[in-house]
Amino acid sequence: MQAEANMKWTIAAIGKPSLDYAKRGISEYATRLSRFQSIELRTDWKESGSTKNSANLLASTEGTIRIALDERGELWSTSQFAAHVEAWQLSGTKRVSCLIGGADGHDDNLRAECDHVLALSRLTLQHELALLVLYEQIYRVHSYLRGDPYHREG
Amino acid sequence: MQAEANMKWTIAAIGKPSLDYAKRGISEYATRLSRFQSIELRTDWKESGSTKNSANLLASTEGTIRIALDERGELWSTSQFAAHVEAWQLSGTKRVSCLIGGADGHDDNLRAECDHVLALSRLTLQHELALLVLYEQIYRVHSYLRGDPYHREG
Repeated sequence: MQAEANMKWTIAAIGKPSLDYAKRGISEYATRLSRFQSIELRTDWKESGSTKNSANLLASTEGTIRIALDERGELWSTSQFAAHVEAWQLSGTKRVSCLIGGADGHDDNLRAECDHVLALSRLTLQHELALLVLYEQIYRVHSYLRGDPYHREG
Repeated sequence: MQAEANMKWTIAAIGKPSLDYAKRGISEYATRLSRFQSIELRTDWKESGSTKNSANLLASTEGTIRIALDERGELWSTSQFAAHVEAWQLSGTKRVSCLIGGADGHDDNLRAECDHVLALSRLTLQHELALLVLYEQIYRVHSYLRGDPYHREG
């Protein structure tokens, strides 16, 4: 489907994954996704406190649909997540960005500027584990929308 | 604290983790936990459909506090999870079991027999990623209760 190929993902995170298992897991889903979906991971920024971190994340995702990851955010099911992705595809969205903060999370301005504030869980997850869960979920959503068996079997 | 050392965890899951990253991640947190907490992973059962799977999980966790993992369950924050663990420790609980179902999840009888039904997320997570999230969370909860810095820094 043309619309699907045209919509790209950016994952913008403060802090590079450093734990071996997390790097491997992210690479696992990034490789699977790359067969049918463009996704880039940007971790260009040093930890600089929440105000500066948030400004960096916003500046780098200008003009995209923005999802802030925040444990106080909305809890989506996989099918609700997929419904959002499908709506973005159909409306011709070029890029969706997921913004992951540093040690102190996002500031209020970032939350206000984002289109959605999403909680992967009410549990506090280690930063790089949250990144891994997000990658698996984006892979799951696209598999589901393509009718691939992964979502049912996973 | 004596009570902490006395309370043990069993994670009883249908299906062994097979993805490399998940095995490494589970091992990462199991190793960290083993410094101060007993935790065993039991994956002795073949996938046999939800009724038989649920019967196997219940039979193997008789006499323990049981938590069924189910995406329709209660959403706990890390501090709510920690409050439960602290209450179990103080009441002299010997063992807490987390029950993770197979492809079709748990049956109604298992949910009724368990003390709690917990959702790690409203998102559907790959089976072995859910196991990894659970391990990280048990490690986080015990770090938090011990006053270790991990919970704040993670």
